[in-house]
Amino acid sequence: MALPATYKQMLSTVTADAELRLELVEKDLPTPKTGEILVRVEATPINPSDLGVMFGWTDMDKATTSNSGADSVLSASVSPQGMQVMKARIGQNLPVGNEGAGTVVAAGDDDYSQSLIGKTVAIMGGGMYAQYRCVPAMMALPLKDEHSAKDGASCFVNPLTALSMVEVLKMEGHKALVHTAAASNLGQMLNRICAADGVDLVNIVRKTEQADLLKAMGAKYVVNSSDDDFMAQLTDAVHETGATLAFDATGGGTLASDILTAMEMAAARTPSDYSIYGSTKHKQVYIYGGLEVAPTVLSRSYGFAWGVGAFLLPNFLAKAGMDVAARLRARVAEELTTTFASNYTDEISMIDALQAETVAKYNAKATGEKFLVCPQQGL
Amino acid sequence: MALPATYKQMLSTVTADAELRLELVEKDLPTPKTGEILVRVEATPINPSDLGVMFGWTDMDKATTSNSGADSVLSASVSPQGMQVMKARIGQNLPVGNEGAGTVVAAGDDDYSQSLIGKTVAIMGGGMYAQYRCVPAMMALPLKDEHSAKDGASCFVNPLTALSMVEVLKMEGHKALVHTAAASNLGQMLNRICAADGVDLVNIVRKTEQADLLKAMGAKYVVNSSDDDFMAQLTDAVHETGATLAFDATGGGTLASDILTAMEMAAARTPSDYSIYGSTKHKQVYIYGGLEVAPTVLSRSYGFAWGVGAFLLPNFLAKAGMDVAARLRARVAEELTTTFASNYTDEISMIDALQAETVAKYNAKATGEKFLVCPQQGL
Repeated sequence: MALPATYKQMLSTVTADAELRLELVEKDLPTPKTGEILVRVEATPINPSDLGVMFGWTDMDKATTSNSGADSVLSASVSPQGMQVMKARIGQNLPVGNEGAGTVVAAGDDDYSQSLIGKTVAIMGGGMYAQYRCVPAMMALPLKDEHSAKDGASCFVNPLTALSMVEVLKMEGHKALVHTAAASNLGQMLNRICAADGVDLVNIVRKTEQADLLKAMGAKYVVNSSDDDFMAQLTDAVHETGATLAFDATGGGTLASDILTAMEMAAARTPSDYSIYGSTKHKQVYIYGGLEVAPTVLSRSYGFAWGVGAFLLPNFLAKAGMDVAARLRARVAEELTTTFASNYTDEISMIDALQAETVAKYNAKATGEKFLVCPQQGL
Repeated sequence: MALPATYKQMLSTVTADAELRLELVEKDLPTPKTGEILVRVEATPINPSDLGVMFGWTDMDKATTSNSGADSVLSASVSPQGMQVMKARIGQNLPVGNEGAGTVVAAGDDDYSQSLIGKTVAIMGGGMYAQYRCVPAMMALPLKDEHSAKDGASCFVNPLTALSMVEVLKMEGHKALVHTAAASNLGQMLNRICAADGVDLVNIVRKTEQADLLKAMGAKYVVNSSDDDFMAQLTDAVHETGATLAFDATGGGTLASDILTAMEMAAARTPSDYSIYGSTKHKQVYIYGGLEVAPTVLSRSYGFAWGVGAFLLPNFLAKAGMDVAARLRARVAEELTTTFASNYTDEISMIDALQAETVAKYNAKATGEKFLVCPQQGL
């Protein structure tokens, strides 16, 4: 198949006059050098971390789309506070899309790169919302023959994040963990990992159907934050499992604080775990998402052995080291369509992704909703 | 001097019917065993951490005092939430007063204990709001001959907390630090330590007279949170010093979050310190007090490399190890009336400390106000 001379790539820009712009830009198709491969991107998910790069601290409720088709421009005005926070990116045209998968259509002159031609590979390297992406061959994860680009599109972010949670548990000496927004794709993966590894997991969901889904998967501890006796349920589950670590995808509101309160009340049931200053074992909540944009509110009614902090996958992998990263990656490739299977509720083109009404849907980050961008569609 | 047969000790109790009671209880004077000393307590400070044990999660605004003199009983009702949080201490009669100093009046039969008779010593061992306290001789820090019990009353909590902040800075690899309620006794000590150790310190105060006091001491970076341009001042000071660590005595409200925001805005001025996910260096705020009882509110507009957590001196010392604790303690004894000098605005008896109108004063935790309890007075 002949390759085109140019391709479309999505770029996000915060302009000096306080406007956020996303649009498709025409680029010359690169020729892969030695050690590089050119991948036709066929499937790339929209993760919350992608939304962070696409929209940053812009309120997208009043975003509009001008022009149409490949010339569509999505724009929104940025608040003064947003401009402060995004100062470092003003004027830069940022490629978007952390991860994705596709077919290798050209390669450098070395044997390894050449051996990948025609293969389906997964990549985590940024700039995946594009028809083509040229990357070092070593960065690509070749999929098994039976796996499609769609199977491998979400190979990195969710699987490695879920695996990292269990790594953090082991590294920091915790016994069990709590997870919020637990019916998400990532939450389902985490349930499968914890079941396989024998780690107790307390799932927090917001809806009965989410609780039912996890219970049907075999989850033992599922508590619903919409129930009147949520705190009692959560305290019981934390007490039974001994969980002192939580990963929170919501971030805003009181949920992180509620989890720490439940951990404190559970510890108070065991006098040896408790001093006059509160529970003695360190209790930690990592916020890894921002489904709730409201501020995080901490009541601090849980003694003096607690922490709340942000969790970002690249920072964790850098700290954990290459051996850990390689071990986690190998497990993902092996268990791609079992432990790490992803479900998508919508498949859209890059043009669709620039339409304000579609943005409203995928930016809502509803649990269970997951969008896949197919860059070959519509162009 | 003949010793009495009994002595008075202050005890704090949360009863099963939701009442907090503080009163003086008569105890038999113990005879020190081998390796022990009996100390006549002459001076013991009221630290915020003492208030935590005395009152816990009780709202003291409606506290009342019944009876009078040595029979005074301070009481207040405890809210249902307070009872939940204080579950582990219900029904226990807790001694109060973390640290203090006094004269050794009796000792066990071993040489070391005997050698301390007549000496002024400082102790951190709890139960110091009492006329007498029997402790292992090894726990006592003998003061130099020229130092009084009042000089040594606050030998441990504030000095070791201030020294620990600089230890944390070194252990966690930070370059400079931010401190709130910076004109406090502890804050003044920290200024002297940082000046001696060559560590840049950004002082946050709330009032002009507090800023003036610190500047007169030679503090280079003092910002006033009541100023309209507080955030700009703070960001400049953080940028100049490179501070990525803060210790916050206030706890509640947005101050911890404001500090992280200033650190983020300072990082954004240096492109190499900044990625699309925000600043790359970890920014940490430790909350070591609760001057503001309101919840902590975190805006999270500072990327993905931040943490907020509680700091408690005994937990830190346990983690740092005996060698570090011994090194810090030796420095305190050496620099007791210089670096670690404390000022007291009020000296009260244990009976005074049980009067509701006096509680209102020392429980207000106003910066610059510091109460010393003199257990030999009034009884």
